[in-house]
Order: sequence, then C-alpha cells, then structure tokens
Amino acid sequence: MKKKILLTPGPTPVPTQVLLAMAGPSIHHRTPEFMAIFKEMNDNLKYVFQTKNDVFTFAASGTGAMEAAVVNLLSPGDTALCIQAGKFGERWTELCKAYQVNPIVIDVAWGDAVQPEAIEKALKEHKNIKAVFTTLCETSTGVVTDIKAIGQVMLKSEAVLVTDAISALGSIDLQTDAWGVDVVVAGSQKGLMIPPGLGLCSVSPKAWKLVEKALCPRYYFDLRTAKKALDKTDTAFTPAVTLCIGLNEALKMIKAETLEKTFARHQRLSRAVRAGMQAIGLKLYAKKPADAVTAVCVPEGIDGEKLVKAIRDDFGISIAGGQAELKGKIFRIAQMGYMNEFDIITGISCIELMLAKMGYAFERGKGVGAAEKELLA
Amino acid sequence: MKKKILLTPGPTPVPTQVLLAMAGPSIHHRTPEFMAIFKEMNDNLKYVFQTKNDVFTFAASGTGAMEAAVVNLLSPGDTALCIQAGKFGERWTELCKAYQVNPIVIDVAWGDAVQPEAIEKALKEHKNIKAVFTTLCETSTGVVTDIKAIGQVMLKSEAVLVTDAISALGSIDLQTDAWGVDVVVAGSQKGLMIPPGLGLCSVSPKAWKLVEKALCPRYYFDLRTAKKALDKTDTAFTPAVTLCIGLNEALKMIKAETLEKTFARHQRLSRAVRAGMQAIGLKLYAKKPADAVTAVCVPEGIDGEKLVKAIRDDFGISIAGGQAELKGKIFRIAQMGYMNEFDIITGISCIELMLAKMGYAFERGKGVGAAEKELLA
Repeated sequence: MKKKILLTPGPTPVPTQVLLAMAGPSIHHRTPEFMAIFKEMNDNLKYVFQTKNDVFTFAASGTGAMEAAVVNLLSPGDTALCIQAGKFGERWTELCKAYQVNPIVIDVAWGDAVQPEAIEKALKEHKNIKAVFTTLCETSTGVVTDIKAIGQVMLKSEAVLVTDAISALGSIDLQTDAWGVDVVVAGSQKGLMIPPGLGLCSVSPKAWKLVEKALCPRYYFDLRTAKKALDKTDTAFTPAVTLCIGLNEALKMIKAETLEKTFARHQRLSRAVRAGMQAIGLKLYAKKPADAVTAVCVPEGIDGEKLVKAIRDDFGISIAGGQAELKGKIFRIAQMGYMNEFDIITGISCIELMLAKMGYAFERGKGVGAAEKELLA
Repeated sequence: MKKKILLTPGPTPVPTQVLLAMAGPSIHHRTPEFMAIFKEMNDNLKYVFQTKNDVFTFAASGTGAMEAAVVNLLSPGDTALCIQAGKFGERWTELCKAYQVNPIVIDVAWGDAVQPEAIEKALKEHKNIKAVFTTLCETSTGVVTDIKAIGQVMLKSEAVLVTDAISALGSIDLQTDAWGVDVVVAGSQKGLMIPPGLGLCSVSPKAWKLVEKALCPRYYFDLRTAKKALDKTDTAFTPAVTLCIGLNEALKMIKAETLEKTFARHQRLSRAVRAGMQAIGLKLYAKKPADAVTAVCVPEGIDGEKLVKAIRDDFGISIAGGQAELKGKIFRIAQMGYMNEFDIITGISCIELMLAKMGYAFERGKGVGAAEKELLA
C-alpha cells in the first residue's frame, strides 16, 4: 500500500477539496457563473500577491508568464539586467536573448544569492538598463533572494523590478507593492497548491508605461489584450477553466489561514527540515536557504540520483534531485503549499530510512527528533 | 434541480471518468509514472491526428498552439496566405501581423467556405507564399472547410498547409498525412473532451525544414526545444499534468469507439440537429455546415442574445450565441465530443421550449420528431 506523496518543489500536493472542485460539472467561461468565480479569484490573487495591481492569468506554465514579462516590457535592442544564480535565473537571460534584448548578466555562484549592492552598481554603470530580472526562490539551489533590499536599491532607478516568484508565492513573504516590485511572476503548481497549467503576473503602473511602448512581438501573451479582457472580468483567449476554479478554492484556503500564518508555517517547517538534515550529519547546500525548499548535499559515498529514485520506487515518495551541474550532488525537499508537520516528518524519515539502507552511518531517528524540537519551538 | 448541460462549441462536456482521473493523487511530471502516461498520450494523439508526425502539447489555449505554428514556420517579412471566413480565420491574420509576417488575405463571406481554387490562384500569383493558414471548422459560423481539396491544390506548392482544427479534431475527419496537412493545431476543450488548457500541434517533415530556418523570436512556444524534450518523452517546461492525464483518458475513449465511429456519430447528431431546426422553420446559417457545431439563424422578432441567456438561466443549459458581427443574429449548438442522441434531443427541446415561451409560432415537438427520424435513419 504505497501512498503517493509529493515532496517536490513543484508540483506540490493538491488539497482534496480543490481536486473535487475541479472535478465538478464543466462550465462555460463566458457565463455569469464563471465570471463570479473569476472575479473572486482575481481579488484573492491581489491578496496573495500583496498588491493593488492587476494580476493576469495565462493558460501556460510559469515560463509562459516569464515570457509575458519580457515581451511586454521590452523592445529588441533594449538592455536588461539578469540575475543568474541557478537554472531559473538563467531562463531570464535565455528569454531576453530569444527576443533580442541585450542581457547584462550578474553571475552569482550557485548556492548563493545576489548582493543588492551588485545590482546598484550595475544600474549605475549601465544607465540604459530598463528592467532587472530576479528570482525570489531559486528552486534549483534552494536559495532565497532579498527582494526587499533590491527594491530599496532600485528606488531611484527608472528600471522596473521583475521577480520570478514561481517557486515561492504564497510560501515566502513577497510584498509586491510595499517593496516596489513592478512585475511578479507566479505559477500554479507551487505555493498556490493547484496542478501546473497557469502562469500569472502582476503589473505595476510603472511597468504599464513600458507595456504600452514595448516593441517585442507578442500575441498570446500580449498584456494589452489581456488587460482589455480583464477589465470586463474576461480573458482574451479561452481560460483553463478547471484550473481557475481550483485556484480560487486554493486561494480561499490561504486567505482563511491568513498570509501571515501561511508564511509562519513555511518558516517553521523549513527550520525543522534544516535541523533534521543537519542532525544526521548532512550539509545544507544553500547559503541563504529559502523557507520553501531545502537543498541538501548528498553525503560522500552515496549516489544522489539513486537515492531519489529509490525513495520514489520503494516508498512512493517524490523528492527532487539536483538539476544541471548539481545532478546527483544534492537532493531537495519542498516545504511548499499544502504541507504540514507530518509531511515534513515523513520526508525526513524516508531520507533516514533510505540513507540507512544505502549504508550511510548515523543515529536513526535523530533527524526526526531534531525536527520535532523545532516544530514545538 | 437545474442540471448544468454544456452544448457549446467548446468547452464541451468532460466524461466523469476523465474528471475523476484528473482528480487522482498529484504526480510529478519527471517520473516513470507520468512518462508512461505521456508516452501513451502521445501515441494516442497520433491516432486521433491521423499522422505519423510528432504531436506537441503546450500548456496553453488553442491560440497558443496557433502562435506556435506562426512563429516556428516563418520569419519577419515572410508572406503567408490567411483564409478568413470568420472570427478564428481572422486570428491567423492577427498572429501574422503581430510577428511582422505579411498576410495575404482571402476574405470569404461569413457563412461560406473558401474555394480551393482561390487558394490555387493565390499561390500562382504570389510565388513567395510560405504558409497557407486555414480553419477546418470555423466555430464562429459553423462552416466546414474542405481541407482535403486544399491539400490537393497545394500538392505542387512549396508552401506548407496549416490547419486550425481546434474546433473539430476528433469530431470531423481530418487525415493529416493522407491529405498533406503539414501542421494541424488543436485544443483540448472541444472534440478532445477535456477542460481547456492544452494547445496541440502536429508538424510534418516538410514543416520541420521551415522550423529550423524560421527567424520569428520564440521561447515558450519554440518547437526546437519542445522536440528535444519530446524525443526523451519529456516537455521543455512543466506540463499541465492533470490535463495530460485527462487527455490520455479521453483519447483512450476515442480509440475504443474508433475514429470511424466517432465521426459517424458526429455526422448523425449533426444531421439530426439540422433537421430539427429546419422542421420548426428555422434557417441554418452555414452554407457548408460542419458536423460539429450547428449555427442557426434567430427567427424574426426574437432577440438572439435573450434566447441564449434565458435558456441558460431557466434550464441551466449553455448554448452559444453569435460572435462579433453575428451577435444576436445566430445561436450555435455543438455536436462535439462527449455528446450523444439525448444531448441533441435536449438541445432541440430546450430551444423549442424557449422559442415557444418567447412567442415564436411552431408546432411543438416537431423539431425533436424530425431529429428522431434522422437518428434512426
């Protein structure tokens, strides 16, 4: 009786009540019934995005919403600053190049986060930077970036601040308006607790000025047509109806818990995982670990890819391995979305069990014990 | 006890077994479990697309897959032929313009279909046409286009044939390979019987040559990265996992019924609807009606928008009104996807009931009777 348990940093577990809402009778999107759900969803999105700005929802993965940010803000030949501290930071650079935007890249060592001063310096050196592309939680390394501080150093800049919060929105605090983040990009399958298939982005008035001038070609991701539709509680193209219904249910759950308590839960769970891993002698990979996903170095003598595979095959539990240059070197456990104390305990225990099976020496139960202490702290 | 019944040309009803498959435990997309589903789905797509070509699946609405066709085949400055016989034909032209492709437009009167000879003529006059963009079933008018004949006149042309089959794939016969259609675009929420959120397209070897040379900027919809991933039974970006699971279930149902019988069912249901509407004195709008959606002229003295709204409000049944210039002038009932005899009878009966309520004079039950005759014919 293997139970399938998702402890990956996206997709994350979907609450049963959300799954059932999505399994309800199919409805047409151009009806008062769907419009009422869509309106509530859009209001709830503003709560979770912590913004008064419009939030746009595309039938797309998070990458689609990242593309929307690039093509709607910039023109070919424009210059943008891309912060690269992992696989997803690199995606900003790739997107800019695809649309003939010149990326100035700040390359940060994997496992670390950018220094806000480096951004300040780049903005001083290159007055033509129109947009700064950042990542709140770099899923590939488990590192959190100090977006608040970046917002501060950008206060006097004319450039817009864009943050990929795909892996963190609803898990880690991101005060869109208070911190001055012009465009926040999110995806449905992480902290927002629904299956993949929706890409979202919020757009500030400052960013809107660029949207109107941007010359990158665009159609499906054109925010101008999206805005015209949104103003009528509609979408430019057929929305992913069931995912919108699910998202609204999930957002209501976050609202009921309150963002404050949601963030506190993620912090508590993350502290517990970190304590648990360290208690059995493992090292954390991230210098500034995100309270959403914990990257852990695979100990000497253990094959990281085998570890992840064996946990899945033997226990039905999905954790994530390392990507690109980190393949086999780290594993990642999520504390993201619909997760509580016992998901975390399960995660730590399955790692203990499999490491023991694979011959790693440590005192059994010590990781779980350390986590329990943190959970009650 | 209003039952919600969808008789709109997308979204269409989703079978309960598909809804339940999508409501199952969440799974990660980079697992053997999902890969097995994804492989089966891709094989089943080839069956339904009637092709040996790769079929690509994007988390996007159908319009996203249309954009994929334009940006992957063409370069700015290229010339394309766009057949416009309704709202969705116009979308090809808009997409070309958005990417600085020059559209040569064949404007066909709404309600009618393009003459293949007109395409032949245009190809002779403009040797630089690289792609011909067509629509199998123009949802806005309920008209079917003779793609087979267009394939014939294009046999000697170097241009690729692209067909928007969003509203018809799985409902109306479209022999991708046999008829020489290079790119077929589809969407999930029509004949494929699942909720909106997936855009699909098949790509022929002839079209691939253009994909490799095309200079339109692209990232999310880049078929080159999509192909690299597909060759490893993977996707370039996170797929809409639940929708893929649902699509595979729905495709299995089509395969079990067989395409031949699926098409025959759509033909029978469509004949019945047409007979029913004509039996109560209504006129069909389409000169070449598609066996997937029936557009019916609203009779004199009846407000078409009110008719559609009242049927929804009083009976819980969604049929579609007219779009753009046809607003209030026609209504549309779908025979698309998961529909059988009694869905059609329900559709005809609800129109009879509401027309009677609104004061239109006709012999009650005559529409249903005529439809029944066709169903047994």
